[in-house]
Amino acid sequence: MRTLTVLKIGGNVLDNSELLPEVLKNFSERSGLKILVHGGGKVANRYLQALGINPVMMEGRRVTDAKTLEVVSMVYAGLINKQLVGMLQVFGCNALGLSGADAAVIPASKRSPIPVDYGYVGDVILSDIPGQLIHHWLEDNITPVFSPLSFEKKSGCLLNTNADTIASAVSAAMASFYAVRLVYCFEKKGVLSDPGDENSVIESMTFQEFQQLKQGGVITEGMIPKLENAFTALSKGVSEVWICGPQAFRKENPFSGTLITHGRIP
Amino acid sequence: MRTLTVLKIGGNVLDNSELLPEVLKNFSERSGLKILVHGGGKVANRYLQALGINPVMMEGRRVTDAKTLEVVSMVYAGLINKQLVGMLQVFGCNALGLSGADAAVIPASKRSPIPVDYGYVGDVILSDIPGQLIHHWLEDNITPVFSPLSFEKKSGCLLNTNADTIASAVSAAMASFYAVRLVYCFEKKGVLSDPGDENSVIESMTFQEFQQLKQGGVITEGMIPKLENAFTALSKGVSEVWICGPQAFRKENPFSGTLITHGRIP
Repeated sequence: MRTLTVLKIGGNVLDNSELLPEVLKNFSERSGLKILVHGGGKVANRYLQALGINPVMMEGRRVTDAKTLEVVSMVYAGLINKQLVGMLQVFGCNALGLSGADAAVIPASKRSPIPVDYGYVGDVILSDIPGQLIHHWLEDNITPVFSPLSFEKKSGCLLNTNADTIASAVSAAMASFYAVRLVYCFEKKGVLSDPGDENSVIESMTFQEFQQLKQGGVITEGMIPKLENAFTALSKGVSEVWICGPQAFRKENPFSGTLITHGRIP
Repeated sequence: MRTLTVLKIGGNVLDNSELLPEVLKNFSERSGLKILVHGGGKVANRYLQALGINPVMMEGRRVTDAKTLEVVSMVYAGLINKQLVGMLQVFGCNALGLSGADAAVIPASKRSPIPVDYGYVGDVILSDIPGQLIHHWLEDNITPVFSPLSFEKKSGCLLNTNADTIASAVSAAMASFYAVRLVYCFEKKGVLSDPGDENSVIESMTFQEFQQLKQGGVITEGMIPKLENAFTALSKGVSEVWICGPQAFRKENPFSGTLITHGRIP
C-alpha cells in the first residue's frame, strides 16, 4: 500500500512570511502522494473588520452568519487557497485548490442551532467524501489543497468547517486507498507537557494518556479538539498522526513532534 | 468525435437572480460534456468600493494593481465561482471550480506594461493549457468551472484575464479532443444590426462580414473583442461559436442567436 501524507497548516504558519514558503517547499520536495489542508481565520478576521463586520467567536469557534460566510468563503477559497496553490506550483507541485463544493469533495450538513447556534457551520458527512475521485487525482499526480469549507448539497451552500476536522475526515476517507500519515503542523514543536517550556514535547500519546493529561489540566483549550480529531482519524483507519512544528517537515524521515498512536509506537 | 459545449456567462446574467438559476439549470440538464466560464466584474467593483479601492478601467479593461488583484481573486475564485459550483451541484452537475493556478489550467504571462500598463493582467499561453488533464476530468463526469483568472508559473501569481478570452482559449485547447461548441451567453439575443431593436439579431457572420460591420460602425465597443475571441477560437479548431441570449439555452436544439462561421453555415 502506498503512503499518502496529509499536511494541515494553521494560522501561525500561514501568517509567517518566512516560514510558509519553507514549509511549502519542503512539502513539495517530499516524495510520495500528498494532500494539503489549510485554515486561515486570522486573514478572514482582517477582511471582516475591513468590511465592517465584527468577528464573533464562541468557545474558540467562529459564529458564521450569512455575510460572514460570504467573506470567509472569499478569503479561504479565493485568497489563501489560491496563494498556496500558486506557491506550490512554483515549487513544482501540481496543486489543485478545493472548497467543499468543488466536485462535492467535503459533503456536510448544517449544524443544528441547538444547543449553540454557530450559523453556517458544517459537520462533515465522512461516508459521502468521494474517495475514488480524490484517488484518481492523486494518481494523476495532482496534489489537492483543501480550504476549510464544507458543502451542503441540498441547499448548494458552502459551510464553515474547522480545518483540523477536514484534515481528519479527508485522511479517514483515503485510508482504504493508502497508508495515511496525517500531520498537524503548528507553531509549537509538538504537544507540550509544560506550556512554558518549548522543549517539553510529549513524544507519543495513547488515547488513555490523552484522557489523563486532559483531566490533569496539562492539555487545554485548542489542543483538545485537535487531539480529538487526531484520535478520530486513527479510529477510522489512518495509520499515524503527528502533531509537530514546521521544522519537522525539513527532513524526509524521521518526523519529530508528538506521535498519536493506538497504544503502541508503530 | 464527442461534442463539448463551453458556455461563457457574463455580468448581466450573473447579476440577475432570476435568470442565473434558470441558465444554470438548463446548462446542467443539457446532455453531453460541458465547461462553464464566468466573469464577475460588477460584483468585484462592489467589493473594491466597500474596501475603499477605486476600480480603474481603461478602454473597457480593468487596471489591476496588487490590492485590486487580491480582491478580484477573492471575488472571482472564492465567491462567484463557488456560488456557481454550489448551484450546479444542486442541479445534479458535478462542477469543479478552477482558477488559472489550479493544476495550472490557465497558464499565462504578465502583459507588457508598454504601451499601456494594465498591471496584473495575463495573456494566456494556449499551448501550455493541460488539455489532457481537462479531458480526464470531463471523462470522469466532472464539469470544470473557470473563473477569469490566469496564472504565471514563474512568479506563482494569479493574473486578471478577460473571461471571453479564457472561454476562447479553453475551447481551442479542447478542440483536439472534441467537436467544441463555444457559446457566449449575454443579455441580448445575439449580435444586433440595430442596437435600438432587440430583435435585429444577425443570424450568422463570417470574418469578412464582421470586418464590414465593424467598419460601418454597426459593431462597436465590447462586442468587438468578443467577436475577435470568437474568430480566434474558430481559427484554432473550434467547430462553432454562438453569441446568444440566456433564452437560447432553453431548448436542446437548435440554438438561436448569432452563429459565427468560417464562411458557411455548418
